[in-house]
Parts: sequence; C-alpha cells; structure tokens
Amino acid sequence: MQLNTARPRIVELRQNVLKKNDLLARQLRTRFQAAGVYVLNLVSSPGAGKTTLLTETLRRLGARYSVAALVGDLATENDAAKLRESGARVRQITTGTVCHLEAEMIEHHLEGWDLAELDFLFIENVGNLVCPASYDLGENERVVLFSVTEGEDKPAKYPPLVNSADVALVTKCDLAEAVGFQRTAFLEALEAVRPGVPVLEVSARTGEGMDAWISHLEEARKSWLAVQS
Amino acid sequence: MQLNTARPRIVELRQNVLKKNDLLARQLRTRFQAAGVYVLNLVSSPGAGKTTLLTETLRRLGARYSVAALVGDLATENDAAKLRESGARVRQITTGTVCHLEAEMIEHHLEGWDLAELDFLFIENVGNLVCPASYDLGENERVVLFSVTEGEDKPAKYPPLVNSADVALVTKCDLAEAVGFQRTAFLEALEAVRPGVPVLEVSARTGEGMDAWISHLEEARKSWLAVQS
Repeated sequence: MQLNTARPRIVELRQNVLKKNDLLARQLRTRFQAAGVYVLNLVSSPGAGKTTLLTETLRRLGARYSVAALVGDLATENDAAKLRESGARVRQITTGTVCHLEAEMIEHHLEGWDLAELDFLFIENVGNLVCPASYDLGENERVVLFSVTEGEDKPAKYPPLVNSADVALVTKCDLAEAVGFQRTAFLEALEAVRPGVPVLEVSARTGEGMDAWISHLEEARKSWLAVQS
Repeated sequence: MQLNTARPRIVELRQNVLKKNDLLARQLRTRFQAAGVYVLNLVSSPGAGKTTLLTETLRRLGARYSVAALVGDLATENDAAKLRESGARVRQITTGTVCHLEAEMIEHHLEGWDLAELDFLFIENVGNLVCPASYDLGENERVVLFSVTEGEDKPAKYPPLVNSADVALVTKCDLAEAVGFQRTAFLEALEAVRPGVPVLEVSARTGEGMDAWISHLEEARKSWLAVQS
C-alpha cells in the first residue's frame, strides 16, 4: 500500500496540468471563434476508422470549404500522409509516449497557419478511449467513434469519454452483418451513458450515411456562425 | 508554455509511482513463482476480442488445469460475467477513470485466493494500446492482441506497448477477408517494431488457431516449471 502516500500529490499536480490545459484550450477557443473556424476533435479506440472517415470527410467538404487537419499518433507520419490524399492541409503530431493530445500541442502545430482562411479544422486524437477525455482542445464538437467490430458494450465500459462527447458516430456499418453487430443493444448502451447524444451511422468505404454526416457538419458550423454574428 | 514548469515534477513523481509498481510487481512475481502459477497479461485496444478469446481459452484449458482470471475495465462487471460462463474463477477490477491495471490492484484482487491451487492466471487489462505498457503486473508473459479489423499499421503507431510484448495474437481472423486485412503488411509492421516476436493467428469464434494457442500456453508453462525445479 506504499502507493497511497504518493497519490495525493499526483492528483494535485495532475489537476494543475488539467487546469493549465483548460486555460490554454479556452485561449484556443477564442482564437478559433475570432477566425470563424469550426473545430472538431475526433476520439476513438485504435482502428475504429478515424483516418478513413476523415480522409473521405476532407475530400467531400474540400470541394466547397477550406479544410485542414491535425492528426495525433505516438509514432509514424502514416495518418498525415493518408489524409493529405484529400488535398487538405494536414500536420502530424507525434506524441512519443503521451496517450492523448493536449491544447499546447495543438497551439504549437497551428503555427504558421492563417486560421481565418479555414472553415473547418479537424483534430484526430490519439487512438485511446480513456485518456483524451480530460483534455479540452478548444474544439466546438467532440465526436466519439465506435466501430461495429468493437462490440456493443463499449459505451458502458468507457463512460468518461462518452460523457464528454457531443456526437457519436457508428463506423464501418458495412461490416455490421459480418460481425453480428447488435445495433439495438449498442444504442441502448450509448443512451444509458449519454442520454440524447446524436448518433450517426456511417461507412466511409461504401459511402453509407456520409451525406448525413457532411450535412451535420455544415449545419453545425452554420448555426454556430449565426450565434456569433 | 506554462506547462513546462510543471513537467519535471510530474515526470519525477510518475517515475516514483512506476518504481513502486515495479517493486510490487516483483513481489507478485515471486509469489506466482512459489505457487507455480503461470501468469499472462492480455493487452489490446478496446474491442480487439480479449474477452471472447479468454472465455474460449478458459473453457479449453479448464478441462485439464485450474484456471482463473482477473479482468480490468473502467466500469461494468460485463466481462467478468462473460468469463464466468467458462466455469473459471473470475474477478472484475473496475478502475474508475484509471486507464490501465497496476500491480497494487492485482495484489488486492487476489486476496482470499490460494494461488497454489492455480495453474494459470490470466489478467485482462483495460482496453488501451498505450498506458498499460509501463505497468508490470508480475506476469510471465505479456500478450498483445491486434484484431484484423484494426488495420495493418497499428504496431508501428503504438510501439511502446508492442515493444513490451512477449507474444502477439492476431484475432478475429475469420473476418480477414471481409475487412480486406493485408496480412503481409501487418506482419512486416510488427516485425519492424518487435523483431522475432512470436505471432499466433486465431479466431475464437471459428476455433481457427486455438489449438496452437492452447499448446503454446501449455508448453510455455511446462518450460517455466522445468526451469524452476
């Protein structure tokens, strides 16, 4: 039980880090607002399909809007390379051993970009259903993705992140039948943790549900801009 | 850049926690050794199939060995309930907001169990491809699972955990074709991060590769016991 003696100080310092992150996130939010750029923070477990969804999202939105993305991983530039295929401005954030993105990393990686030129900024977080929950990145909307291949009870097992999400996406819907996805059980689990959260079901591979997702993004930005003016 | 001032102390305290965890893990390892129980720590992202694999593993091994499991999740007793279907002794560890299991949690949840009665103890970690890397639980073998639905580059993107693994399992192999899994690319990515790591390809649903996995477990325990005596 030696650990207990160290815990109160750990908690205190962790709270200081979070407090500083929150302050920085607030500054970022003010900057995003002034620039009129609508920011989304995509969170999920590894392999839920964030990058594939985002590539297709950037491609579709890119025809009518100025879009950009920041993408976090412990290592590799793989995701940035994939996302650049869409033609959007993309920067990779490699975190080393850090299991989530922080506001400071976002601020640092925005250097040199004129935010006023952007309509949408997507932040793809490190694949992790736990740790990104505590780190505000100044986003307008936090989007949690669950793939049909992950099973039905994930929302119940990772409540902190689900509780911080504004929208939930069910991804890889084209595989639902092959993996025996129990849609009703999943939606009930999600509703139990985060009642009333909007849910969109998509497949970036087949295009299923992508129109609704793109419309959601356009409408959300439009409503937000209307409130600003 | 305010965060920087807090960082050195955070790092120092985190190292103290890890050091204490290591000491406790060493004590656990000594206890496991004295009792002759072979311990495995299963790590993966959420939804990679740890619980399904483990249910089938406990069922198969349970016919000839005394087996038990500890299973970690932020919330719910779902996994323990599922695992108990195998007939094995099972305890759930709910971590609240903690993103990994620690040696102290293992020690606490072993209370009342006579380790000398056990042949195998399986520890199912919290679904997380990052944070469990740093926490030794006193296990003989750390097993990292990747499902074919997660894509091919995950080993490259989560190197710390992969580098700490003794064995890699490719799970949900029955879905490989449906999801277009590129086996060679995956094995190359794995080999680049962790050269020479043994790889087993399994499907708990169809039984594919399960005999090889069970044989691996029996052989690994036998070799270990032989070295002890």
